[in-house]
Amino acid sequence: MVSPLRWRDGTLEILDQTRLPAEEVWIRCSTPDEVADAIRRLAVRGAPAIGIAAAYGLALAEPSASGIERAADLLGSTRPTAVNLRWALERGRRAFESAGADALLPLAERIAEEQREADSRIAVHGAALFGQRERVLTHCNTGALATGGRGTALGTIEAAWEAGRVELVWVDETRPLLQGARLTTYELGAVSIPYRLVADSSAGVLMTRGLVDRVIVGADRIAANGDVANKIGTYPLAVLARRHDIPFCVAAPLSTVDLASPDGDAIELEQRDPAEITRFGSAQVAPADAEAVNWAFDVTPHDLVTAIVTEAGVLEAPYDRSIADVLSTSQSAA
Amino acid sequence: MVSPLRWRDGTLEILDQTRLPAEEVWIRCSTPDEVADAIRRLAVRGAPAIGIAAAYGLALAEPSASGIERAADLLGSTRPTAVNLRWALERGRRAFESAGADALLPLAERIAEEQREADSRIAVHGAALFGQRERVLTHCNTGALATGGRGTALGTIEAAWEAGRVELVWVDETRPLLQGARLTTYELGAVSIPYRLVADSSAGVLMTRGLVDRVIVGADRIAANGDVANKIGTYPLAVLARRHDIPFCVAAPLSTVDLASPDGDAIELEQRDPAEITRFGSAQVAPADAEAVNWAFDVTPHDLVTAIVTEAGVLEAPYDRSIADVLSTSQSAA
Repeated sequence: MVSPLRWRDGTLEILDQTRLPAEEVWIRCSTPDEVADAIRRLAVRGAPAIGIAAAYGLALAEPSASGIERAADLLGSTRPTAVNLRWALERGRRAFESAGADALLPLAERIAEEQREADSRIAVHGAALFGQRERVLTHCNTGALATGGRGTALGTIEAAWEAGRVELVWVDETRPLLQGARLTTYELGAVSIPYRLVADSSAGVLMTRGLVDRVIVGADRIAANGDVANKIGTYPLAVLARRHDIPFCVAAPLSTVDLASPDGDAIELEQRDPAEITRFGSAQVAPADAEAVNWAFDVTPHDLVTAIVTEAGVLEAPYDRSIADVLSTSQSAA
Repeated sequence: MVSPLRWRDGTLEILDQTRLPAEEVWIRCSTPDEVADAIRRLAVRGAPAIGIAAAYGLALAEPSASGIERAADLLGSTRPTAVNLRWALERGRRAFESAGADALLPLAERIAEEQREADSRIAVHGAALFGQRERVLTHCNTGALATGGRGTALGTIEAAWEAGRVELVWVDETRPLLQGARLTTYELGAVSIPYRLVADSSAGVLMTRGLVDRVIVGADRIAANGDVANKIGTYPLAVLARRHDIPFCVAAPLSTVDLASPDGDAIELEQRDPAEITRFGSAQVAPADAEAVNWAFDVTPHDLVTAIVTEAGVLEAPYDRSIADVLSTSQSAA
């Protein structure tokens, strides 16, 4: 299993996912600034993985109240949509207040371990949803590279495949940064799960021809009512799935739920550099003066979501109630 | 206005659209094989323009019954979905039978001229559909480069803009070959119509935020019942537009209608080289052994189409009747 992060000799090493699959380059980060830069430019990405990276980034801060505060602000400003980042930094702040800077590295390791455990449980719960030999479509990358564990949606697909419940994975290339074409293919190929890469806009023809039995994706933030912010292009998949009566499932750890967002309208959607659209690597694609708009996420309303798979089990509608219930249970158990 | 084709010194010169917008390179074709190759590799594309190119290609054939037949078969095999190609070649065959090879060049010039006239009428009829200062979304390229005239959907947008009926054009980049990012931006920029380039998967967030007033696209083939085959990604736009109560319009000449296709199921959808997905120019994007599937078109069912704009006026549902009526009227007028 590939890993997006490793702690070595007092530094955080980050596998540069922008260079995959062509090259495996590790970036050595010895300051929160270097970690923040890696998160901002998507060297490490995936909501759970950026939460873990931020927790390690905090452990690299100057061990004073002002140093920790500055690092938390910097790391928290890198990506506005994924809530795991804020959640991990908030845990870091509380750990520092109660036990000092020495508590930050053990906390980062604990968050990483919790995610690995959550991934394993998500995979078990999610795989049970699959029928026999399904053709499943997924978007972006939600595997080991996105979480440091087994992955969320992709971990579920892998577990379902091991149980004979998956025939083929349709992998959306996921413009503009091609996490599907570059990373999901790389992870599926490593474990020999059959897949076919397609352009994002192919989902319609695939569903029309009866070639998709299920859609499963991850999440960057889940609002209290079950609305799901995820990689741009997720909402069109959910709308198409509904038209074709295909289950549309979301797999994410409970750390992705944000009760402070009552619904999707409350979620800030990151816009990224237009050059991700107008250029391709070093090549200019559009005219030099072309203006582009680059939303990184969209929101899928809860009424289009068949199920949300979490480490605590599979949530179903009405989500406001099932989410509130599972969070109160998991908090009282913790 | 840019032109995709020109006849010069007894040869057909084709503007190589695969090199735009970076370079304007003209390919000189003196045989039907060279024209067929240019069509196959999308140096010239757009349903009307490939019909015109094929008609000129026939005029380059060896002037014998067997030479014409061989050229027509070759040219007709290049792209299976766009029906204009077959329609132009059928007209060429009939012209040769009744008036010999000397009739082929004048016929090609007539088809090109008819398309220019059709485009102008489509633009007038289409522009009348627009309200005031609309934000209109379009897919692929349907401008002068696609027809040799004013364009179909893009010509309509341009005419509506001249009349103050367009505020902004959302341009889908149109994976995998980026005709939107490369060509539509180039054409809109040349006439200073404000546009923003977006990833194909952005339509959902644009519509959710109330930023799209209309979708208008071209067509590669329209079945007798009004089902529309067009560039991959068109059908998802139509499904999203319906969910958001946004008009979804198609602009195409009557030569795009194929009464021999009773509905969309009868339309062959071209699949192209998977390398268009796995590679980007000379760069490998996906793992070297990645398998991809590359549908070039999808079918939008007629129930999602608000209007079909033709040179003979705007058609509305029920399309089986409105299409049959307009074709019988235009044939009796011809």
